[in-house]
Amino acid sequence: MISPFYYKDHTFFILDQRRLPLEETWIGCTCADDVALAIRTLAVRGAPAIGIAAAYGLVLASRKGREHVEHCARTLKEARPTAVNLAWAVGRCLEAVRDAADSDLPDRLLHEASVIWQEETAANESMARLGSSLFAPGRRYSVLTHCNAGSLATGGIGTAVGVIRRLHEEGKLAMVYMDETRPLLQGARITAYELTKAGIPSTLITDSMAGWVMKLGKIDAVIVGADRIARNLDAANKVGSYGLSVLARAHGIPFFIAAPRSTFDPDTPTGEGIPIEERDPLEVRSFQGHVSAPEVPAFNPAFDVVPHRLITAIITEESIICGHESPD
Amino acid sequence: MISPFYYKDHTFFILDQRRLPLEETWIGCTCADDVALAIRTLAVRGAPAIGIAAAYGLVLASRKGREHVEHCARTLKEARPTAVNLAWAVGRCLEAVRDAADSDLPDRLLHEASVIWQEETAANESMARLGSSLFAPGRRYSVLTHCNAGSLATGGIGTAVGVIRRLHEEGKLAMVYMDETRPLLQGARITAYELTKAGIPSTLITDSMAGWVMKLGKIDAVIVGADRIARNLDAANKVGSYGLSVLARAHGIPFFIAAPRSTFDPDTPTGEGIPIEERDPLEVRSFQGHVSAPEVPAFNPAFDVVPHRLITAIITEESIICGHESPD
Repeated sequence: MISPFYYKDHTFFILDQRRLPLEETWIGCTCADDVALAIRTLAVRGAPAIGIAAAYGLVLASRKGREHVEHCARTLKEARPTAVNLAWAVGRCLEAVRDAADSDLPDRLLHEASVIWQEETAANESMARLGSSLFAPGRRYSVLTHCNAGSLATGGIGTAVGVIRRLHEEGKLAMVYMDETRPLLQGARITAYELTKAGIPSTLITDSMAGWVMKLGKIDAVIVGADRIARNLDAANKVGSYGLSVLARAHGIPFFIAAPRSTFDPDTPTGEGIPIEERDPLEVRSFQGHVSAPEVPAFNPAFDVVPHRLITAIITEESIICGHESPD
Repeated sequence: MISPFYYKDHTFFILDQRRLPLEETWIGCTCADDVALAIRTLAVRGAPAIGIAAAYGLVLASRKGREHVEHCARTLKEARPTAVNLAWAVGRCLEAVRDAADSDLPDRLLHEASVIWQEETAANESMARLGSSLFAPGRRYSVLTHCNAGSLATGGIGTAVGVIRRLHEEGKLAMVYMDETRPLLQGARITAYELTKAGIPSTLITDSMAGWVMKLGKIDAVIVGADRIARNLDAANKVGSYGLSVLARAHGIPFFIAAPRSTFDPDTPTGEGIPIEERDPLEVRSFQGHVSAPEVPAFNPAFDVVPHRLITAIITEESIICGHESPD
C-alpha cells in the first residue's frame, strides 16, 4: 500500500499523482500555499486525501500565528470547490484550536491533523468490512470501479478500493474492471497501479466500454467513492459516475458508493446545490500533455451527480444507507 | 470537405487517418495488400470508406489477372471483421466481373469501384436530406455524435455528419457535442477536424461526460453511423454506442443511426451474430503511442451492438426505418 503523503521535519511531502505511474516524485511543502497549490493542480486528489492534506497545510501555517492560520484556512478551503472534505477538515482544525494559545497552535494542529488522518484510515477499514458484507460468501464477484478511490485518494486502504481489497482477501473477488477515467486517467494511472501492486486481478477498459461490459454480463456490482453527499443522499463523484449509475440501473446491477461521514454535507439539501468544478478544456483536448484536438472548444466538468434513486447503497464507516431511505 | 482517398496513375492514395489532425500524410497503395494493410491498421476507417477502399484494392489487383483478384478479394474481405461493407463491396465487384474477359478486368473493376464510390456519395446526400426532415424547422437543435461518421468515414459528406451538415445548412443546428471516442479518438481527432473545417459549432467532451451532458438538458438527439445492421435492425457501431443508446432512452432523447443500404446485412439475423473485432489491448493502455497504464491487462472490443429497441430510427438513403418496425 502506498501513501499519498507524509509529514517530517516541518515539511509535508506529497506524492505527485499527476506523474504516476511512470514517475514517483515527492513535493516537499513548507507552507500552506504549497499545499493549496498541490491540491489545486491535482498533485494530491481524492476527497478524503485533500481534507487530510489541508489539515497539514494548517500545521505548516501555524508557525506564523493565528492570523496566518485563518488566512490560510480560507485559501485551502477554496483550493477546489466540489469535495466537501476540504471545508470539513479545515473547519474541524480551526475548531480544535479555537481556545488555544498561539504558542500551542503548532502542536494542537499537528495533533488534530494526525487524528483526522487516523480516523479516515480507520473509516476505510470499517467501510471495507461493511461493504464486503454486501457480497454474499460462496462465490466470486466482478466489480466495476471508476476513477481512483484507493490509498492515494484517502491515505488509508481506500473507500471503494478498500471494499475491493477486502473482497479479494475474503476470496469473494473474481475481477475488477477499471474505467480509465478521462480526462486525467486516474483509473488507468492510479487505480491500475494500486491494484497491480496489491496483486488484485484487474482489467482496464475505456469509459465508453462500461455499458457494453455490463451488457456482456461481466459486472456484478459497481462501486465508486464520492466527493460530496447532499442531505437527500445525491452524491457528487468523478464525471462519468452519473452515466454509470444509469447504465447499472438499466442492467439491474447494484450501484454502491463508499464514503466516510466527512464526505456528507448536511448544509446542502440536494445534488443541485453541489458546486461542480469546471476545469481547463485543454484537459479534454489532450492527454498528459499530448494534444489530440488542437483547435476545438471543449466542456470539462470534473464531477457529476448521481441521484439518490440510482444509488443502491452508501457504505459509510458507521452503517450501510440505502438510497431509497433518502429523506425526500 | 476532405476526401479519405483518390485514385491516380494506377495508384490508390489513402489519407493516413491515424496521424490526423496533426499531420496530413498520404499512403500510395500500388497493390491490394497495401490497401488491406491500410484497412487493417486503420489508416482508412469507417464502414462505407473501407468498402470503397477494398473495391480499389481489387482494381490494383486486376493487372495480375483473375486468379490474383480472387485471392486478393479474400484478403481484403478479412482485413476487418465487423463492418459488412467490406464483404459487400468486394462481393459486388466480383459479381460485376464474373463474365468479363481477363483483359477487361482492370477497366470493369475501375468502373465498378467508381460507381460504388459515387453511389455512397449520393446515399450520403439522401440520408442528409431525409435525416434533417426528422428535425422540425423553426428551432435549433443540439446533437451528440460518437466516433466519426463523416467525410473521412464515407468518401461523401458523411452519414451521421452528413445529417449534421444539412441541419447546419438549414439553420436547424445549435451545437454538436462530440464524444472524443477512446481508445483511438476518432471524435477528438477526426470529427472535430471535419466540423471545425466546415465552420460547424462543436464542443468536444470525453466519452464519460455524455450521460451528464444529457442530464443537463444539452442534447436534443443522438446521431451516429453504423458498421453492420442485422436483419432485426440491431446495429453494430463504435464501442460506446450501446451505452449512449441506453443513456438516450433513460433521458427520453431520440437515438438515430444514419447508414446506407450497404451497411445492412440480411444474412445476419440479430446483433448476436455480428462478429465484434477485438483489438490490441495496448490501444486502451495508451494514447497515440504514449503509454498511460504500463502493466495491466485491458479489454478492447472495437464495437458494440445497439439493440433495435433502443434505436428511434435508422436513416438510410431510401427511407427512415423505425426501430420498432423490426421483424422480431
